[in-house]
Amino acid sequence: MNRKMVFSTLGQLTLSEAALMLLPLIVSLIYGEIWVAISFFISIAVAVVLGTFLYLGFQTENKLIFAKEGFVIVSFGWLIMSAIGALPFVISRDIPFYVDAFFETVSGFTTTGASVLTDVEALSHGALFWRSFTHWVGGMGILVFVMALLPSISDRSIHIMRAEMPGPIVGKIVPRARQTARILYIIYFVMTVIQIVLLLLGNMSLFDSIIHAFGTAGTGGFGIKADSVASYSPYLQWVITIFMFLFGVNFNIYYLILLKKFKSVIKSGELWAYAGITAGATAIICINILPSFNNFGDALRASAFQVSSIITTTGFSTVDFNLWPTLSKTIIIGLMFIGACAGSTGGGFKVTRVVMLFKAIKQELKRMLHPRSVQAVKFEGKVVEQTTLNGVGIYLAIYLVCFALILLLISFEPFDFETNFSATMSCVNNIGPGLSAVGPMSSFAAYSDFSKIILSFAMLLGRLEIYPLIIALSPSTWTKK
Amino acid sequence: MNRKMVFSTLGQLTLSEAALMLLPLIVSLIYGEIWVAISFFISIAVAVVLGTFLYLGFQTENKLIFAKEGFVIVSFGWLIMSAIGALPFVISRDIPFYVDAFFETVSGFTTTGASVLTDVEALSHGALFWRSFTHWVGGMGILVFVMALLPSISDRSIHIMRAEMPGPIVGKIVPRARQTARILYIIYFVMTVIQIVLLLLGNMSLFDSIIHAFGTAGTGGFGIKADSVASYSPYLQWVITIFMFLFGVNFNIYYLILLKKFKSVIKSGELWAYAGITAGATAIICINILPSFNNFGDALRASAFQVSSIITTTGFSTVDFNLWPTLSKTIIIGLMFIGACAGSTGGGFKVTRVVMLFKAIKQELKRMLHPRSVQAVKFEGKVVEQTTLNGVGIYLAIYLVCFALILLLISFEPFDFETNFSATMSCVNNIGPGLSAVGPMSSFAAYSDFSKIILSFAMLLGRLEIYPLIIALSPSTWTKK
Repeated sequence: MNRKMVFSTLGQLTLSEAALMLLPLIVSLIYGEIWVAISFFISIAVAVVLGTFLYLGFQTENKLIFAKEGFVIVSFGWLIMSAIGALPFVISRDIPFYVDAFFETVSGFTTTGASVLTDVEALSHGALFWRSFTHWVGGMGILVFVMALLPSISDRSIHIMRAEMPGPIVGKIVPRARQTARILYIIYFVMTVIQIVLLLLGNMSLFDSIIHAFGTAGTGGFGIKADSVASYSPYLQWVITIFMFLFGVNFNIYYLILLKKFKSVIKSGELWAYAGITAGATAIICINILPSFNNFGDALRASAFQVSSIITTTGFSTVDFNLWPTLSKTIIIGLMFIGACAGSTGGGFKVTRVVMLFKAIKQELKRMLHPRSVQAVKFEGKVVEQTTLNGVGIYLAIYLVCFALILLLISFEPFDFETNFSATMSCVNNIGPGLSAVGPMSSFAAYSDFSKIILSFAMLLGRLEIYPLIIALSPSTWTKK
Repeated sequence: MNRKMVFSTLGQLTLSEAALMLLPLIVSLIYGEIWVAISFFISIAVAVVLGTFLYLGFQTENKLIFAKEGFVIVSFGWLIMSAIGALPFVISRDIPFYVDAFFETVSGFTTTGASVLTDVEALSHGALFWRSFTHWVGGMGILVFVMALLPSISDRSIHIMRAEMPGPIVGKIVPRARQTARILYIIYFVMTVIQIVLLLLGNMSLFDSIIHAFGTAGTGGFGIKADSVASYSPYLQWVITIFMFLFGVNFNIYYLILLKKFKSVIKSGELWAYAGITAGATAIICINILPSFNNFGDALRASAFQVSSIITTTGFSTVDFNLWPTLSKTIIIGLMFIGACAGSTGGGFKVTRVVMLFKAIKQELKRMLHPRSVQAVKFEGKVVEQTTLNGVGIYLAIYLVCFALILLLISFEPFDFETNFSATMSCVNNIGPGLSAVGPMSSFAAYSDFSKIILSFAMLLGRLEIYPLIIALSPSTWTKK
C-alpha cells in the first residue's frame, strides 16, 4: 500500500477541515459568543498542526493509488474529520463529554441526525451552525468536497470517489473524477441556495433558513428546536418536504436535465421507483392517520413530510410518528430500510439496489424453470454486469450481518426490542430518529458510552456502505505481502 | 405443462392422506372418542372421493415432468393436504372454525407449531394425535413420504424432491430420487423410535412420548399441555433438547455415518457452524439469564432447551423467554432467522445459506481489491457453482421481500410492532412461538381471520422456500405458450 500517499491525503483533508471551521467561528463572532469562537480557534489550531504534520511529513513522488488506498483514505478520513470536528463542542462545553460530542459529529457528517442532546435550544449559535454544516459537507461526501476544491489529489482519485459515493455503480458523470466532483457540488450548492431563498420567502429567519437548508440538502435532519420543524408554518413544511424529496434523487438526473436529456430522465427506472414508493407510502399513511387529524390537508402534509423525511433518511419531523398506528409505523420502518436513490445525499440500502434485487429475483425465477436460457438484466437502458447484480445480493447479506452484530452489541442496554431495533435501523441507515425510547421527540442520550461508540461506528458503516471500513480495518491491508 | 400428470399425482397424494388419517381414527377408537372417530371417517371419505376422482380422471401415458410441474405439484399438494387435514378438527368441533383449523393444520404440516388454541388440554386424543402426526409427516416432506412408500410417481421425480427439500443444494444421497427418499425415511423413523424409547424410560406415558417425539422429529413443536414441556422432569427436557438438536442436523450426515465415512462428517463446515452457533448462543443466554435462576444447572437447561428449540425451529418451551432480558431475546430472534441445517426437518434461512453468504462476502471483498483474480468458493470440500452462490443472495432478497409484505399485511391488527414482527418471523421460519402477545405462553388466537390466512400462507412460503409457491401461482405457469 502507498502509505505516504494515504497519510498526505489525510493531511490535506485535515487542513480542509480547519478551513471549514472558519465559518462557525465567524458565526460565533457575529452572535458575540466569544468563548465559542475561541473553541473553534483552538480546534482549528489543532487541525492545522496535525494536518501540516501529515501533509508535509509524508510527501512522495509516487502519487499512484488503487482501490485499497481509496478505501483506507475514505475510512480514516471520515474518522479523523469526526474526531477533530467534535473538539469545539467539548471545548465550548456545548456538549461537555467527548463520546457524546463524537457521536453528534459522526451523526452530523454521516447526515444521520441522531442526537444525544436533550435540550438542543440551549446550544450556542456557533455550535448549532457547525452541527448542521457538517450535514452539508458530509452529504455530498467529504472527500468529493476536497476533490472539487483542491488541486487534484491524484490522477487516480476515482478510487477515492468510488469508495465514498453511495450506490452499486459509481456515477462518474464526466471522464475525470475531479470534474464530476465539481459539477456535483455546483448543482448541490445552487439547490441549497434556492431552498434558502424559498424559506426566507416564508418568513423564516436567515439563520434558521441556512440551518434547515443544510439539514435538508445533506438529508441530515439536525434541527434547532426541541420539536424539530413542527412549529413552522405549513408553507415552510411543504418547502422542506419537497426539497427533502429532491435531494434524495440521484444527482445524475439533475446533470441530465442540465444537458437537456429529458428522455433519459423520463426513462429512469430508479426515479420512477423512488417517486412511486414515496407516493404510495404517503397515500397509505395519510388514510391510516386521517382519524387523528382535523382535516385531510393536515394529514396529507404530515404523511408527505414524514415519508419524504424517512425515505431520504433526513429525519426531520413535524409530528411524533411514534404514536401512529402500527401499520404506519411498519411502513416507516420499511422506508428506513429502502432509503433514497444512489448518487444522492440520502442513506439507506438505496432504491437502485431494491430495483436491481427485484430484477435479479425475476431472473432467478426464469432460471429455475429454464436453466439453459439465462437473460441479461437491464437497468436504466444498459445491461447490468452479472458481477454487479450478484454484488447487490452480497451487499444485502453483509448489511444484515452488520445490522445483527450492532443490534446485539447494543442489546446490553435496558431498552425494549423496538427501541434497540429502530436505533440500529436509524443509525445504520443514517436516518436520525427511531421508535419508542429513541422516537422523534426523544434522543439517544440514555444509551451508555459503549453503545454510543458502537452506534457511531454503525453510522459510519452505513454512510460508507460497509466495505471501505472493513477493508481499512482488516490486518491484511496493513501487512506487506 | 403436463397438467394430467400434475392432477393425477395430486390424486395419489390425497389418497395417501386418507390412509394417514386411519391412524388418528384408531387412536380415537382406543380412547373411546366415537364422535372424533366418525369425524376422521368422514374426512377420509372426502379424501378418498376427491383423490380417486383426481387420480383416475387424469390418467396419462406421458409421465414426463420438469421443474415447473415439480413446483406446481408440491405447492398444490401442500395446500390440498392442509385443506383436507383441517376437516376432522372442524367436524369433531375440536376447532370449530374452519380458518382456525386450516391455520392449525398448515402449522402442523409445515412443522411450525404456531397455534390458535387457547386451551390445548381440552382437545380430544384423536385430534391431538393428528395434530402432532402432521408434524412428523411434514417434517421430512409430504411428497418425499409418498415417494418413499408408493411405486415411483415418475421417473423424473427428482423435480418433486428438489421443489420440496429445503436448502440451496438438493441432497440426493443416491442417484435415484426414490431410493434417497426411502433411506431418509428409514433414518427418520429409527431416530423417532429411539426418542420414544428414551422418553418412556423417563416415565413419560406412551401417548405423551409419541406426541413429543413427533413434535421433536418434525421440529414442529405442538405440545399437549398449556405450559408446553415445562412440567416434565429435567431428564425428559434434556432428551428433547438433544433430539431437537439432532433432527436439525443435515440427514446426509447420518447417511455418511451409516457408510462409516467419519472423515467427511468431521469436515462438514455446516455441522461445525450449526454446533458452534448453538453452543455460543447457549453460553451467552445462560450467563445472561443466570440471575433469575436458583442454580447454574437450571439456567443451562433452560438456555440449552430454548436455543435448540429455536434454532431448529421446533418451538417447544420450558420457560417464557418473553420475560428474558433484551440481549437474550435479541439472540433468540437471530436464531429464529438462521434456522437449522439444510436437508434437516428444521426451517428458517438455513445454516448452509448463512455459511455460504459469509464465503460470498469474503469473495466479494477480495474481488473489490483485486478485480481480476476471482477465486472459486469451496463448501464441504467441493467448489460451489457461482450460480448457486449468487442464488443464495437472491434467496435472501426474496425472503426479505416476502417477510416485509407479510408483516405489512398483518399490521392492520391492533398489536405492537414486536408482536407482529415476531409473529411474521415465527411463521415464515416455521418456528411457532413469537414474542410479546404471541409469546411461548400465548397463542395466535387473537389475530383476525384475514391475518390467520396470511400467516398460513407465510408458513407454507417458509416451508417450501418461496419459489414453488410463486411459480405455481403465477399466471404464466398456467397459460400455454
